[in-house]
Amino acid sequence: MSTTSRGVFITFEGLDGTGKTTQMRRLAERLRAVGRDVFESAEPGGTPIGQQIRRILLDHRNHELCATAEMLLMFAARAQNVDQWILPALAAGKIVLSDRFTDSTLAYQGVARGLGADVVLDVDRIACRGLVPDLTVCLDIDPVAGLARAHSRNREQSGVETRLDEQDLEFYRRVREGYRQIASDEPGRVKLVDGSGTVEEIEGAVWECVRGAVGLE
Amino acid sequence: MSTTSRGVFITFEGLDGTGKTTQMRRLAERLRAVGRDVFESAEPGGTPIGQQIRRILLDHRNHELCATAEMLLMFAARAQNVDQWILPALAAGKIVLSDRFTDSTLAYQGVARGLGADVVLDVDRIACRGLVPDLTVCLDIDPVAGLARAHSRNREQSGVETRLDEQDLEFYRRVREGYRQIASDEPGRVKLVDGSGTVEEIEGAVWECVRGAVGLE
Repeated sequence: MSTTSRGVFITFEGLDGTGKTTQMRRLAERLRAVGRDVFESAEPGGTPIGQQIRRILLDHRNHELCATAEMLLMFAARAQNVDQWILPALAAGKIVLSDRFTDSTLAYQGVARGLGADVVLDVDRIACRGLVPDLTVCLDIDPVAGLARAHSRNREQSGVETRLDEQDLEFYRRVREGYRQIASDEPGRVKLVDGSGTVEEIEGAVWECVRGAVGLE
Repeated sequence: MSTTSRGVFITFEGLDGTGKTTQMRRLAERLRAVGRDVFESAEPGGTPIGQQIRRILLDHRNHELCATAEMLLMFAARAQNVDQWILPALAAGKIVLSDRFTDSTLAYQGVARGLGADVVLDVDRIACRGLVPDLTVCLDIDPVAGLARAHSRNREQSGVETRLDEQDLEFYRRVREGYRQIASDEPGRVKLVDGSGTVEEIEGAVWECVRGAVGLE
């Protein structure tokens, strides 16, 4: 846990289409049902400024966006989120849940786009000022299944914000390997959860990971 | 000069209202008149993606933007500019002129907003991949005179994009001290030019700085 916080910081990670958002919402409801004060966040669009940054990142007309600029935009949104919402919520003793955090940038930009972990961690140190999740739930799924879910969802929503989803399958395989490497490097913090089961099965597995971290064992 | 370039990279720096943009345009015309191939850029809005980032930076509704996120947005725009336009232009042998570059971030965010030079230079190393200007012309002016010019200009233009101009005079005094420190630390690269004269006087002083760097002595 960050030395500056009294709360608990839990992040959800994984490919698009793994069900992160659904699982995070269910966890939030479950924690609130047992009386815990929960703050839900998402990246990169967690804050109003983050939403403006997210529009740049996802606009398919910005196909020329280079990997370094993409990474710096992600961290700009994160720095704002940490400063404006996450650190104050942790200081107030809340359980903060975030749909994505630095591990996303490590897996997507560091590994899959090839910037390297060192570059990402150097910027993380500046952007997040030492804040590291207490627990990271990483939903692991075969990229083919995840892409099918993500595309189906995007078709139902706006047709515009699809830039990140148009990457090829090979890219997502590298992202998955990036996540698995992080989980292997930091087994104490990062818990890999099989994302191929039913929503209820995954919810149960997530709860098993989380309840110790929030003192409900 | 960057080891990867055959061109010459010249940046203009200074407070708002010092006449940077006017002087850069006059220099470009003068260089073209003697047959040189010149590429003009500006930060943070040099590229289409940079223009989108600039809108976030200058929108007065984003008053909660934290200094670290502001710096990372500046470098995201810069990374895109370096990748998309500046490095290719230098590789093609052009003289690249940029209205602001990393020294702006050092003076504004590093010194005046207090992030520190080390933090700015750490991100610069990642965003700019070793690209340093061959020559930097820093127009030096009393902040009171600069602010008066900048406010007059902004009143004539759109009333919306004024966030950076609303800072107080003390902030601009710190920016000026930041620029003077950079010029003192790197006298070979950074030339301080008195910005209090007429446009023609300043143009002459700028030309004296530049003509050696572009082989016209």
